[in-house]
Amino acid sequence: MMHESVPDAFLATLAAIVGPSGLVTGAELRGRPASWTRPEEPCAAAALVRPRTTQEVSLVLAACHAAGHPVVPRGGCTGLVDGILCNAAEIALSLERMGGIESVDPLAMTMVARAGTTIAMVQDAAQAEGLMFPLDLGARGSATVGGTIATNAGGLRVLRYGMMREMVLGLEAVLADGTVVSSLRPLIKNNTGLDPKHLFLGTEGTLGIVTRAVLRLRPAPAGYATAFLACPGVDAAARVLARTQAAFQGRVSSFEGMWPGYYRLMTEPGRFAPPLPREHPYYALVEIECVPEEEPRIHALLESLMEAGDILDAVLAASEEQRRGLWRIREAVEMLVPAGFGRPFDVSVPLSAMHDYVAAATRAVAAIRPGAGAVAYGHIGDGNIHWNTTPLGDPALEAQVDAAIYGPLTALSGSVSAEHGIGLAKRGKLGLSRSDSEVAVMRAVKQALDPRRILNPGKIFLG
Amino acid sequence: MMHESVPDAFLATLAAIVGPSGLVTGAELRGRPASWTRPEEPCAAAALVRPRTTQEVSLVLAACHAAGHPVVPRGGCTGLVDGILCNAAEIALSLERMGGIESVDPLAMTMVARAGTTIAMVQDAAQAEGLMFPLDLGARGSATVGGTIATNAGGLRVLRYGMMREMVLGLEAVLADGTVVSSLRPLIKNNTGLDPKHLFLGTEGTLGIVTRAVLRLRPAPAGYATAFLACPGVDAAARVLARTQAAFQGRVSSFEGMWPGYYRLMTEPGRFAPPLPREHPYYALVEIECVPEEEPRIHALLESLMEAGDILDAVLAASEEQRRGLWRIREAVEMLVPAGFGRPFDVSVPLSAMHDYVAAATRAVAAIRPGAGAVAYGHIGDGNIHWNTTPLGDPALEAQVDAAIYGPLTALSGSVSAEHGIGLAKRGKLGLSRSDSEVAVMRAVKQALDPRRILNPGKIFLG
Repeated sequence: MMHESVPDAFLATLAAIVGPSGLVTGAELRGRPASWTRPEEPCAAAALVRPRTTQEVSLVLAACHAAGHPVVPRGGCTGLVDGILCNAAEIALSLERMGGIESVDPLAMTMVARAGTTIAMVQDAAQAEGLMFPLDLGARGSATVGGTIATNAGGLRVLRYGMMREMVLGLEAVLADGTVVSSLRPLIKNNTGLDPKHLFLGTEGTLGIVTRAVLRLRPAPAGYATAFLACPGVDAAARVLARTQAAFQGRVSSFEGMWPGYYRLMTEPGRFAPPLPREHPYYALVEIECVPEEEPRIHALLESLMEAGDILDAVLAASEEQRRGLWRIREAVEMLVPAGFGRPFDVSVPLSAMHDYVAAATRAVAAIRPGAGAVAYGHIGDGNIHWNTTPLGDPALEAQVDAAIYGPLTALSGSVSAEHGIGLAKRGKLGLSRSDSEVAVMRAVKQALDPRRILNPGKIFLG
Repeated sequence: MMHESVPDAFLATLAAIVGPSGLVTGAELRGRPASWTRPEEPCAAAALVRPRTTQEVSLVLAACHAAGHPVVPRGGCTGLVDGILCNAAEIALSLERMGGIESVDPLAMTMVARAGTTIAMVQDAAQAEGLMFPLDLGARGSATVGGTIATNAGGLRVLRYGMMREMVLGLEAVLADGTVVSSLRPLIKNNTGLDPKHLFLGTEGTLGIVTRAVLRLRPAPAGYATAFLACPGVDAAARVLARTQAAFQGRVSSFEGMWPGYYRLMTEPGRFAPPLPREHPYYALVEIECVPEEEPRIHALLESLMEAGDILDAVLAASEEQRRGLWRIREAVEMLVPAGFGRPFDVSVPLSAMHDYVAAATRAVAAIRPGAGAVAYGHIGDGNIHWNTTPLGDPALEAQVDAAIYGPLTALSGSVSAEHGIGLAKRGKLGLSRSDSEVAVMRAVKQALDPRRILNPGKIFLG
């Protein structure tokens, strides 16, 4: 596709706003990757603009709005759905020069951070006060406050602490025309009409650019108990979750599931030593926030669940090293790619529908052609299944894989994206998990806030 | 103010949609109160329309939209900000014939309920499955699912479970023009662009009428420990909260504060027997979800906090009856009215600002004239202070009281409404806790979804 290029005079206008070092073009720009999924492909934008202040973001957007130049924001560039992909007619926008924590209020347990701050920095600053910022994901060292708000990031502790949405008390954002929307209040409760922050959470930079946020911190857990379980199936695992939540008053911080194909792959010789025999029908990793003196209660619960038949076998981590070892089996999903399962999916379905859905989709993928296969795992306590399938190298066959995995979701009230977002990669699938009326509402809000469609155009919606 | 009346022919159109018993007019309508705050004043609407199905809601709104007749929704009619007040040119809309729970999924811990279902019914249905619906408020027997979504209700367990927003996974709503927006998915994670539910949560029926919702249920707590504390001040109480959250892994389900004026009033002879001496500078009620075997840890924590000087005295409920007795001191706020404190307020400020704010506002109210006074209490764990002031019977003096209580909030990044909403009563105060740019965004969304302004006109915004 051909795109009109951005005139040099306009780039000079941007450089005048952000200073010469704020505008990246040419070879330096081409040295940056197009997106996480295309590490070899250079960023194609006309330029990358790097403002230093909210005021500069406002001036940049006002200029782009007036001239009709599209703007594609990028955060830590760790997203999986090509939400930051640009073409030569677009200006890429990074807040990488707007990092830093402005303040921490340990008594109110809140923090004000700039959009360019990494999640690791936020976690460290919380820890320094004896507190915790609960959002956690593999990309913590690169992912930013702004990017995780734009994508409403999930991760490993959603079951207990929610997604990024639940950790943002207030924010500051810049609209397409440069208007600065200040909604930076550090309040848990603020019932004063439509809360503007929800327009910017999970909308992938299509409604505004988040520049700062007030984050909610939590007390740091005193400790964890971590168990690896074998179960008769995912329904039994769901009952284990419910019983554990009840016994420990909702303190299950992670409940991860692994279907047998995944577990056997991960515990093949040369990979991880299997903590439990490899012949069980289902595996789960459960982690509870608790203190050491509660260990007898954990043993009693596991025994009771074994008597009920919902647990077949179990191992409890006896040290931090063992705990990390158990987690590695669930977390080392990068090993799936060389093992032949290179196509990732990220869907959600109600927990009660998970067993039948995974069984049917696994069969359907395997039937596409000999050698086609799928392994399933994920944050099942959140209803979130990650699939990895064998790349088939043929678009028609891949469409059959998509149909096997995405097709049943509509009838199950599931979602084509539990946590990764829509971006460019999944916009053709949006209609499978948003009704026409929902999409019409989403478009009406987009039209109201960005009528010239300069903010991340073409993302989320097709056409 | 004069309003054009609604033609009889139009009322006949509505009656044809909802059936004759669905349209309430005349004496029967006048027998219904205007609002909770005006129990003696009859509902002034041209008619009350009571659809039985989402389809009927859609037809009613489409007709009102086409004819340009405003619609004012009412739920359980227990709101405190006159959000349901109507005039003779308006049609009142109630979903009282759309009650009932459609389904419960105990494994996924979700429930589908119609908008007219009361919160008490939802709580009971959850309890029947061994689960809990955490929203709880005094009006539980009247407040409805639809009304608590429209107002994003808070209540007694926000600290642990969030507001109504956090308990709604999906919903169905009808837009001003009759379009049914179906967003009923029972998913914890669904990152597929702007989530439409947030447009209807806390917007007081100005953007659409909620007809059904998928609610998130939680495991029922195994038990509670409840303590009544005396502290040197609210800052010390905040430290007690932080230490208790850390020691019990976030299981503090309520943390209520009482300034000494409130406590002394409630424990005067003839009211409640004081559980602790009446001379302390501050009082707090803390409730923890825990099991009986954790009691030694509670004693150890209280002793440690006493040694640190953050608790001066404490009593732990030894029975359910004692627990209820402690709670009554905090909950029996209806006794404030005959005691001379008849004007309620509902604000929020950061916990770290609470001490200075309450001290200054208390002094400012007392200085207005002899006999003027204010007592403060509230869900301080959420940053939410409820004030009651002595009615002064003079609008100019009441404006001084408002200035004393609302005035400081802007600089403190506080809110003029923590949980009650804006409605008609507080729309003049909206600008104190929403920036002009936020209000502009709120208005832009309103314009996009209800361009003819038929939904609850005049509420939230002035003019």
